[in-house]
Amino acid sequence: MTESIRILGIDPGLRATGWGIVTIRGSELAFVAAGTVKAPVDVELAARLKVIHAGLSDVLQAWQPDEAAVEQTFVNRDASATLKLGQARGVCMLAPAQFGLGVAEYAPNAVKKAIVGGGHAGKDQIRLMVRVLLPRADFDSEHAADALAIAICHAHHRQSARAGLSVV
Amino acid sequence: MTESIRILGIDPGLRATGWGIVTIRGSELAFVAAGTVKAPVDVELAARLKVIHAGLSDVLQAWQPDEAAVEQTFVNRDASATLKLGQARGVCMLAPAQFGLGVAEYAPNAVKKAIVGGGHAGKDQIRLMVRVLLPRADFDSEHAADALAIAICHAHHRQSARAGLSVV
Repeated sequence: MTESIRILGIDPGLRATGWGIVTIRGSELAFVAAGTVKAPVDVELAARLKVIHAGLSDVLQAWQPDEAAVEQTFVNRDASATLKLGQARGVCMLAPAQFGLGVAEYAPNAVKKAIVGGGHAGKDQIRLMVRVLLPRADFDSEHAADALAIAICHAHHRQSARAGLSVV
Repeated sequence: MTESIRILGIDPGLRATGWGIVTIRGSELAFVAAGTVKAPVDVELAARLKVIHAGLSDVLQAWQPDEAAVEQTFVNRDASATLKLGQARGVCMLAPAQFGLGVAEYAPNAVKKAIVGGGHAGKDQIRLMVRVLLPRADFDSEHAADALAIAICHAHHRQSARAGLSVV
């Protein structure tokens, strides 16, 4: 029997952090759950980070994924925006590590390539393909869709490293 | 009797995170403890963040500070370095928030001004003044000295907001 692996994808953000869980069994992908952790904007930064970490810890507790993945995002807008994203990303990577999970990182182009087949796809195209690849997917935000894309990317990479699977 | 407040200053870094604790009673500053949390460089990022978070959580548990402060650092070197610092900073702010502490943020110039009296002091000058202001201070790294400077800055700001204290 082929092993079924449950993967948590995370799209970190200080306002809204998307999460999405898929299973991969052989070459078969399936949707499990997805959602968005929203942090209040009117409290101090540390309190927002606490909400994000607690939300993801609840997800890890409830869904017991086996592995986790995040996008290796770079914000080139300005140093302040990059620092903010880094702070959210730090607590998003911490939560699965505290649950004993490895946390893989993928460059945005790797995510695009795994989902759409090319490194220059737009966000809309990726979200469309998430719906095609996971027809039963139910998600409440674009962040959750992006998190599912990251989970699919990880499923693709971990399987292709063994068996040459292509999810596209 | 004047209330004694215990303040934790944190200097976040992915390799070495400095921490320093001082008490302020009236206008009297005193050294309590300081140290450095070192994260292994040969493991994945999430595992390093876990070490930093666990180290700071141990410090919070052991020393039971009342308030916490971090520097509002900006790295202008490149987006990658800024993102890395942000990740360390995120878990460093999370730990005290999980212990119920407020976490104040100070611009580098505010820290310099509180310690040396001017916004253009060098790192060496700040570390020298930390030794002058806290003659009993015992610290094992420049990161710990910087963390003490941040704690002193917070002591200065929280008191001066009430009583016009000057620590310089």
